[in-house]
Amino acid sequence: MNECLSNISDEEAALIHRYWCAANYLSVGQIYLVDNPLLKEPLRAEHVKSRLLGHWGTTPGLNFIYAHLNRVIRARGSDVLYVCGPGHGGPGMVANTWLEGTYSEIYPLIGPDEDGMRRLFRQFSFPGGIPSHAAPETPGSIHEGGELGYSLIHAFGAALDNPDLVVACVVGDGEAETGPLAASWHGNKFLDPAYDGAVLPIVHLNGFKIANPTIMGRMADDALRQLFEGLGYEPFFVAGHQPGAMHPLMAQTLDRCFDRIAEIQQSARSGSVSGMPRWPMIVLRSPKGWTGPKEVDGKKVEGFWRAHQVPIAEARENEEHRQLLETWMRSYCPDQLFDEEGRLLPELRALAPDGDKRMGASPYANGGRLRRALHRPRWSDFAIDVPAPGGAVAEGTRATGRYLAELLRLNEEARNFRVVGPDETNSNRLNAVFEATDRAWMEPVEPYDENLAPGGRVMEVLSEHLCQGWLEGYTLTGRHGLFNCYEAFVHIVDSMFNQHAKWLKVSRELDWRQPVPSFNYLLSSHVWRQDHNGFSHQDPGFLDLVVNKKSDIVRVYLPPDANTLLRTVDHCLGTHNRINVVVAGKQPAPQWLTPEQAELHCAAGVGIWEWAGTDQDGAAPDVVLACAGDVPTLETLAAVDLLRTHVPDLKIRVVNVVDLMTLESRQDHPHGLTDADFDAIFTTDRPVVFAFHGYPYLIHRLTYKRHNHANVHVRGFREEGTTTTPFDMTVLNGIDRFHLAMDVIDRVPGLSQTASHAKQAFRDKLIAHKLYVREHGEDMPEIRDWSWPHATAAQNGD
Amino acid sequence: MNECLSNISDEEAALIHRYWCAANYLSVGQIYLVDNPLLKEPLRAEHVKSRLLGHWGTTPGLNFIYAHLNRVIRARGSDVLYVCGPGHGGPGMVANTWLEGTYSEIYPLIGPDEDGMRRLFRQFSFPGGIPSHAAPETPGSIHEGGELGYSLIHAFGAALDNPDLVVACVVGDGEAETGPLAASWHGNKFLDPAYDGAVLPIVHLNGFKIANPTIMGRMADDALRQLFEGLGYEPFFVAGHQPGAMHPLMAQTLDRCFDRIAEIQQSARSGSVSGMPRWPMIVLRSPKGWTGPKEVDGKKVEGFWRAHQVPIAEARENEEHRQLLETWMRSYCPDQLFDEEGRLLPELRALAPDGDKRMGASPYANGGRLRRALHRPRWSDFAIDVPAPGGAVAEGTRATGRYLAELLRLNEEARNFRVVGPDETNSNRLNAVFEATDRAWMEPVEPYDENLAPGGRVMEVLSEHLCQGWLEGYTLTGRHGLFNCYEAFVHIVDSMFNQHAKWLKVSRELDWRQPVPSFNYLLSSHVWRQDHNGFSHQDPGFLDLVVNKKSDIVRVYLPPDANTLLRTVDHCLGTHNRINVVVAGKQPAPQWLTPEQAELHCAAGVGIWEWAGTDQDGAAPDVVLACAGDVPTLETLAAVDLLRTHVPDLKIRVVNVVDLMTLESRQDHPHGLTDADFDAIFTTDRPVVFAFHGYPYLIHRLTYKRHNHANVHVRGFREEGTTTTPFDMTVLNGIDRFHLAMDVIDRVPGLSQTASHAKQAFRDKLIAHKLYVREHGEDMPEIRDWSWPHATAAQNGD
Repeated sequence: MNECLSNISDEEAALIHRYWCAANYLSVGQIYLVDNPLLKEPLRAEHVKSRLLGHWGTTPGLNFIYAHLNRVIRARGSDVLYVCGPGHGGPGMVANTWLEGTYSEIYPLIGPDEDGMRRLFRQFSFPGGIPSHAAPETPGSIHEGGELGYSLIHAFGAALDNPDLVVACVVGDGEAETGPLAASWHGNKFLDPAYDGAVLPIVHLNGFKIANPTIMGRMADDALRQLFEGLGYEPFFVAGHQPGAMHPLMAQTLDRCFDRIAEIQQSARSGSVSGMPRWPMIVLRSPKGWTGPKEVDGKKVEGFWRAHQVPIAEARENEEHRQLLETWMRSYCPDQLFDEEGRLLPELRALAPDGDKRMGASPYANGGRLRRALHRPRWSDFAIDVPAPGGAVAEGTRATGRYLAELLRLNEEARNFRVVGPDETNSNRLNAVFEATDRAWMEPVEPYDENLAPGGRVMEVLSEHLCQGWLEGYTLTGRHGLFNCYEAFVHIVDSMFNQHAKWLKVSRELDWRQPVPSFNYLLSSHVWRQDHNGFSHQDPGFLDLVVNKKSDIVRVYLPPDANTLLRTVDHCLGTHNRINVVVAGKQPAPQWLTPEQAELHCAAGVGIWEWAGTDQDGAAPDVVLACAGDVPTLETLAAVDLLRTHVPDLKIRVVNVVDLMTLESRQDHPHGLTDADFDAIFTTDRPVVFAFHGYPYLIHRLTYKRHNHANVHVRGFREEGTTTTPFDMTVLNGIDRFHLAMDVIDRVPGLSQTASHAKQAFRDKLIAHKLYVREHGEDMPEIRDWSWPHATAAQNGD
Repeated sequence: MNECLSNISDEEAALIHRYWCAANYLSVGQIYLVDNPLLKEPLRAEHVKSRLLGHWGTTPGLNFIYAHLNRVIRARGSDVLYVCGPGHGGPGMVANTWLEGTYSEIYPLIGPDEDGMRRLFRQFSFPGGIPSHAAPETPGSIHEGGELGYSLIHAFGAALDNPDLVVACVVGDGEAETGPLAASWHGNKFLDPAYDGAVLPIVHLNGFKIANPTIMGRMADDALRQLFEGLGYEPFFVAGHQPGAMHPLMAQTLDRCFDRIAEIQQSARSGSVSGMPRWPMIVLRSPKGWTGPKEVDGKKVEGFWRAHQVPIAEARENEEHRQLLETWMRSYCPDQLFDEEGRLLPELRALAPDGDKRMGASPYANGGRLRRALHRPRWSDFAIDVPAPGGAVAEGTRATGRYLAELLRLNEEARNFRVVGPDETNSNRLNAVFEATDRAWMEPVEPYDENLAPGGRVMEVLSEHLCQGWLEGYTLTGRHGLFNCYEAFVHIVDSMFNQHAKWLKVSRELDWRQPVPSFNYLLSSHVWRQDHNGFSHQDPGFLDLVVNKKSDIVRVYLPPDANTLLRTVDHCLGTHNRINVVVAGKQPAPQWLTPEQAELHCAAGVGIWEWAGTDQDGAAPDVVLACAGDVPTLETLAAVDLLRTHVPDLKIRVVNVVDLMTLESRQDHPHGLTDADFDAIFTTDRPVVFAFHGYPYLIHRLTYKRHNHANVHVRGFREEGTTTTPFDMTVLNGIDRFHLAMDVIDRVPGLSQTASHAKQAFRDKLIAHKLYVREHGEDMPEIRDWSWPHATAAQNGD
């Protein structure tokens, strides 16, 4: 490996410099030109775009890094994934993948010649073209450059279980100010050098954001060194603005870093060293808008925030500006970079790697190419025995934990499944997984610690951002996983969910992107069972966010019991290119469906529970009681029980919804019921009392086009919460059995007269409950221990 | 100040120790007991709560800190605000405020005696009682202990412009893993020692989360020292578990820290030193569950994660457990802490400060007590001259910038207004504010920098979390502010918004909490004008989140032009205890209303724009075109123009909604129109074509109870975005003038036959537009430059 340590020759440096010039030239061209790409003639107004959109500032630095990584890849045969954190580095990523040939292979219209270059320039930030930042359309990218802060999290996610991969992650100094990025440095506490790949963070300090200096840009080197050493890294500094000095320095530094990575991995893989290694990282200080115009209209541009976007604003209209642009572009000497036909000169093309080693062609960046289906155990092997509805009590998530443990065992060798969560895997009662694996942990382990080890397949960190981003990076590189989270706190990653959904939407429209495994959420410790933790822990609003996204991407499941949960989780783990959201409780609760029933019910997504209702004769019911979610299902069945007792003649239909998107119209969601099916289940004219897990409006929003919508009355969470008992939570929000039963009486024509005694009885019960709870601090036994009393009869009749 | 530097005597240490024991005793009591609070008799099952809920682990450390801060306050007369980051430190905060007397003053039922103590114990984590964490109900708190990560951000927000305040901020080592917390250390780059107060971070490393060690807890002291020095702090370490050693060490360390703070402030305020000071901070290592049971059932508890919640699980049912609990509680020697009547012994009470110096009574923690109304300039002085609708073009936010500049000048001395934003104040075209102030900046300033200075009243950092949290801390301590943010990226703080809304909801129910200034969002660079930045920047879903919250808290405004925006912002800045969300564009756009019209329109919140419609004769219109948001308003008026030309006989009513909550039913929101008013505006039976800024479902959700809902057809953002032109964005989502006009033709009975030629013309226009955009990369001039052509006639006729 010694030849790598020796520095590059002057000739090699000069070649790399020209390669860099080519990337910079193409970057400027994309921002400015629609024609005359090689500047074969003097630049005229009509060659310049009428709307100038794009970001120059960060781009030359990104190009500099790319060119130098190319050299390392060629020298070492490494697999390198380039994660481009700086938001608007799009022109640079596109330029480099065009130079190495990837771009034209994927988009043949953008050929490797003058005509292709013209199209390359034109399409950038142009209607029908491509965005100004790294995006799904960008070859070699798994990382959108829009919302900032997730580059390093994605990088760590990609490196997990990819032992041969080095993820070079450029972190912008703007991005470095965000919370998620600041926390993500701790990824080194989880990365196992024996089985995982490496992350090489390159903090790119160009000193400025849109209109401000950056915090890190103004920190002294000493402070930065302390900071990164404190975080456990070995920082190397590359600083300057003279290309002559910067090229050898960068080459030498990258060699040192790759050597260190190789040493660390060798030591760990040979078993000679354990514990958290001190991974190398690079602090690169270079001017914002490096090699661009020093001044425009007498104002400082290079090395200042004015270089952030389009440094020369009026290049089309203003003769002087246009001249400045032409001078700038010619400073890269395009005729020494491209031949007459616009092709990159062979001695420069020879600097880029070939085939899949090209960073734009890396299969890691098109994770579907590496996707292998999970070995899934038979979920019904872990099912709860339910002799009759309500005839068993179980904790929903606990059975799923046992299923996941077996799944972990089956995929142990493949190493392509991880569970992430903010320190809640135990709390969410998935703890059986620890019979099959440990928690990933590289810091010291004490004798009394439990289930901590390097290489553990459960990743727990008290940061929903890290959990989300790690799993995004992991699934986008073709592997599988599950994020278990408290329901209220998944809002912390609302914006990351949004961006991931957008990524998937666009990816699906690109035929060269192979489908990646779905992103799976299991939201437990949900709103109705955070009675003990209080109001701050009570929020079911994530579902509202989810259904805003494109229907071919999102799925929402509310399994009512353990067997339906098992079947749902198993189903989700077999899907791809989706975001599956599963909400399920962890507390002991009555069980309703046998495995066979669960299979049928989940496959349909929604169904009439004939065993629970009193409309078995097939005639139209007087009322439909619908429910979605485990606690709403329990309260609905208890309400049915009350009504069966107090209003025995009432014909009740019970409908349970496990797949929320069945409610939406078929034209709006592929799972949506047809209107005919919806009408058959919910009727067209009978009152529907719908107990819903989340905010009630969501049901209205999903069903407002349905025929019977005017009769749908929804109860759900209405933002009333506190520290209280589980049942009292439902009472506070009016979704309890008594309110539901009273709703039925109010809504079925004539019933408010004939069943007024029943209504009074329910009201009295509510008062008795309130008094009992205040006195005893727990729910009345008859409510707490209620279980479905019609089991045998119903089962027989079914 | 020398006597402070000398260490405490053994006697003082012993007293502080007993005070700490008292707080610990009360904390355990809250978690476990319903009766026998002073243990006057042996502990029996019925003295123990039936549901044991609460968190012991972090509490003794919090109590330790509290007791020592009390000493410092007494010795120095300091004003100290205690921010309790560790989520579940509730018992400790409550115990301490009871000991110092604040609790009983605020809640007289919980008196300072045995009976009060019994009630204190009983109410904790009990229905009708108080939550298990610091919450609005907790005296002295501005910080909810539910969702973790915001303590230090809140602390910095509270310290701004409060020169006499020291905010002691306890950061838990769990919380320290979150993104927002990790970024918030950089608050020191913005805090001006000359005019702001101080933040004293106390990182409390007790080593464990729910079921895991913490990252920082396992880091070596050397690494922590490097990390915090790199971040710019001077860390002091206090580590151990022997009270005899820990008390003098903590006392000495706090004295050194308060001395350092005084020195820093004195140097800055005398002008002898400038630049960012190296503020002190404390790293406190103490065992989780300190002083609690070492082992339970043979398993390690103290100093391990098993101490996190309730260390002895079955104290009611299990005799041995109950004995263990009693031994534990008696280890604090309650008879040496409280007298026979349960009152704290005088020599211990003497250790706590008096009056408002008590941390539980600090006016800073009940910010409404310090609230002073802003001096607001007359907004109409900054209004745009609109000679006729569409007769002027202006950038909405720019006029607001000028208003804010004057507001900054008027409140310069009061120092009670700040603008926060993620480096987008310029980009959002509020830059006039820099004529009145600078950006806060403590790091080095270069000669070419612009508008950077210590004490600047604009806080820009590339972290929406910091912006949100700083302004929360600032408003909760009684001051005013505005958060300007890109619309798409405000989702980053969804969960913080949620928690702040919950805080306000509960605070409003507590009569002792004085109203605090509202939290104001100005969301600019919105979904319709992120055409250049592409899909990742396009998301209007924050509004869906907002309207989930309690109606007495939230307001959503969509001003259609510059004057309505000015009037709206001015209105919001005069309100309290609310969260106001204002969405407004920054691009040049036609202006519609004069200041007088804007005043009337905003006061009503919704209104018929008679000058725009063709139903002036008062008869029922054929169709209602409704709009909310600036771009939808523009497209609606352009659609009206098209219809007036192509279908001249059509009676059109134009309705503009500026206050979104007017659409909701009166019983659901105080701003909701009565049904009669709604019907008068929207009719009960005519088609309504509604162009909405956000996701269309939100309008359905708000109006589904209205009589005419079945006729409401909404167009909005349907998650179609990319890099394109502004008008093409509206076309992609079907909210453009042509689609709206076609919708009208489709929906007005009979029109699809008689106006088929018009519909064809609109379709042709859409195709022509598409071709033009692909060719030129910009919108057709006739669309780009369209303006309302009926101005004079309409004005005259009005």
